Amino acid sequence: MYGITPSARLRPSPFYEATVKEGVCAFTTYNHMLMPTSYGKPLEEYWRLINGVSQWDVAVERQVQLKGPDAGRLAQILAPRDLSKQNVGQGKYVPLCNHQGVLINDPICLKLADDLYWLSIADSNIWFWAGAIAAERGLRVEVSEPDVSPMAIQGPKAEDVVAAVCGDWVRGLKYFWFKETEINGIPVVVQRSGWSKQGGFEIYLRDGSNGTELWNIFREAGAPWGIGPGNPNWSERVESGLVSFGGDSDGTTNPYEVRMGKYVDLDVPDDTIGIQALRRIAAEGPRRHSLGIILDAGDPVTPGFLWNPIYNDGAKVGDLTNCVFSIRVQKNLGFALISTACKVGDRVEALVAGKMEPGQLVEMPFL
Amino acid sequence: MYGITPSARLRPSPFYEATVKEGVCAFTTYNHMLMPTSYGKPLEEYWRLINGVSQWDVAVERQVQLKGPDAGRLAQILAPRDLSKQNVGQGKYVPLCNHQGVLINDPICLKLADDLYWLSIADSNIWFWAGAIAAERGLRVEVSEPDVSPMAIQGPKAEDVVAAVCGDWVRGLKYFWFKETEINGIPVVVQRSGWSKQGGFEIYLRDGSNGTELWNIFREAGAPWGIGPGNPNWSERVESGLVSFGGDSDGTTNPYEVRMGKYVDLDVPDDTIGIQALRRIAAEGPRRHSLGIILDAGDPVTPGFLWNPIYNDGAKVGDLTNCVFSIRVQKNLGFALISTACKVGDRVEALVAGKMEPGQLVEMPFL
Repeated sequence: MYGITPSARLRPSPFYEATVKEGVCAFTTYNHMLMPTSYGKPLEEYWRLINGVSQWDVAVERQVQLKGPDAGRLAQILAPRDLSKQNVGQGKYVPLCNHQGVLINDPICLKLADDLYWLSIADSNIWFWAGAIAAERGLRVEVSEPDVSPMAIQGPKAEDVVAAVCGDWVRGLKYFWFKETEINGIPVVVQRSGWSKQGGFEIYLRDGSNGTELWNIFREAGAPWGIGPGNPNWSERVESGLVSFGGDSDGTTNPYEVRMGKYVDLDVPDDTIGIQALRRIAAEGPRRHSLGIILDAGDPVTPGFLWNPIYNDGAKVGDLTNCVFSIRVQKNLGFALISTACKVGDRVEALVAGKMEPGQLVEMPFL
Repeated sequence: MYGITPSARLRPSPFYEATVKEGVCAFTTYNHMLMPTSYGKPLEEYWRLINGVSQWDVAVERQVQLKGPDAGRLAQILAPRDLSKQNVGQGKYVPLCNHQGVLINDPICLKLADDLYWLSIADSNIWFWAGAIAAERGLRVEVSEPDVSPMAIQGPKAEDVVAAVCGDWVRGLKYFWFKETEINGIPVVVQRSGWSKQGGFEIYLRDGSNGTELWNIFREAGAPWGIGPGNPNWSERVESGLVSFGGDSDGTTNPYEVRMGKYVDLDVPDDTIGIQALRRIAAEGPRRHSLGIILDAGDPVTPGFLWNPIYNDGAKVGDLTNCVFSIRVQKNLGFALISTACKVGDRVEALVAGKMEPGQLVEMPFL
């Protein structure tokens, strides 16, 4: 593994010191920040998420704040999903598209008030995007990046830990719903959410100077349940079929290609960005879709940084956008962004690290 | 140093294999790509740039291509610098601002034809920005990311090396001017430019499949001049006063604060983004400016990922946005983004890694 050089372009999170103390040993970058990717014990970290409770620094999920009388209008202009019935305290997963219907992010949209929304974003610059649209359309809304940094508590025992800290009311939170509260005087938003399928919460820290304190509160409260450090887990997320924007999508991907069509509402207002293109794509049908692939190879393959081409009878039919050796399935699993001519059950070959790896297309999720 | 975890969100460059062969050992990320930051021999790499010739993978300087009848119009709308007299074959350094006059990138704008421009960008997403503006204003222009990846040849002997490969015509290129040509059948753009003050060229590879071949052509041609691998050099760039967008600027920085005011033309058309705000800032005068700082400390200080606050008589007056132990000056040099109440010659203190470091404000560049 290569080193990462410190730079002020790559900001640490408010939980940085806490994660250093936990023994973080590798990072990725995401929204110009560092996100922990390993604490050096991959199996322990995996099983902690599957069977117990894991604590993650996901401050890189930055918030694009829309504030002002036109905040709701801007949110709807940006998102081709009907937000008209969204309640205060409710989050909604929304694909964002450009004018051509190409996916440019897939945030959770949190409605904090009629005039205050957060887009909790994946790894692309939506501040510029939203700011450009707001200014060009003359909307009365301020677009900014507030001092808000999520920490995730994930796994089957996450609810017990968050209830121990916040109270039993958290057990009643519906998926993506949230509440503004305080923990030991630290202002937070508590939401049932998180980038795993093992259940859990995200605690949005609203004062970056208290990162270490908030981390330690959950660390201590979670001790009876064996809490420990982790991060969005590559093996679990592939097993669970979770899409990584920018990793599983490229500069031409539309929502229908990556199993996000169900989050598009074609009857949103005509001034919603990309809706004309999405209506056309929906009518014609997408040219690619996302299927799972299970490689025959019994040993782990290492796909590295790149997409790997997928072939059928010698013709390129798609790309292997990720590939990981699944701990529970004990096989190499991946996502195939592939021609809709290819179907579940088809045999294909992926060129991984210079070697043709045969495999079979399957439904997702794997588990 | 921490490790960086491979991810398809972080693309390698077309020169990746060549740099691995050269012994690259650390990276940063920039525009969602990996950029080499060390080959493990910092002094050797530094002096090669200062006295000889150095070869850099700077493919992360991506191109935002504007193509179509309104390409020039869009370039001028985006850039608050007069481009009306820009010639085909000429590059111009342009600060890009948002509607509030805040700096959002500082690319070189290359005019390849009346209907074809490239913005060779720093580390922020200008595709989204330019695409939003083009679509919202109904311009006849396509915004895209072409298959173009710069490699830099830098240092006092760079001209000899590039002339050996391309011919003596390169000696006549003026600063930021460029020419489209081929090297061994590989399509390139050759420009006198590069992120150092040691002189040199950037070779824009226009076919990513030929990265290793292009690298090796210069590696072999440069052997008589002792060419070897390097990268944008932190020590040299600080000594030379080169601004790093996103490192030396934040979400509120305007061009006047970071010595870019001379690249702003206040008489550009009124539909240029941010020009009203810039006219107001120019009239009122900026509240911060960028000065050099020389710390008293004789040993290298390590500022890490963060900006470090600067104090004067106990009051915070600005931020140390970078700091490096200069090899030629043999002192810790940094950039102070600081209140205009602070002047050259003032004594201040910077809080670096938990310790107050006294120092003096000076003019830039240092060398």
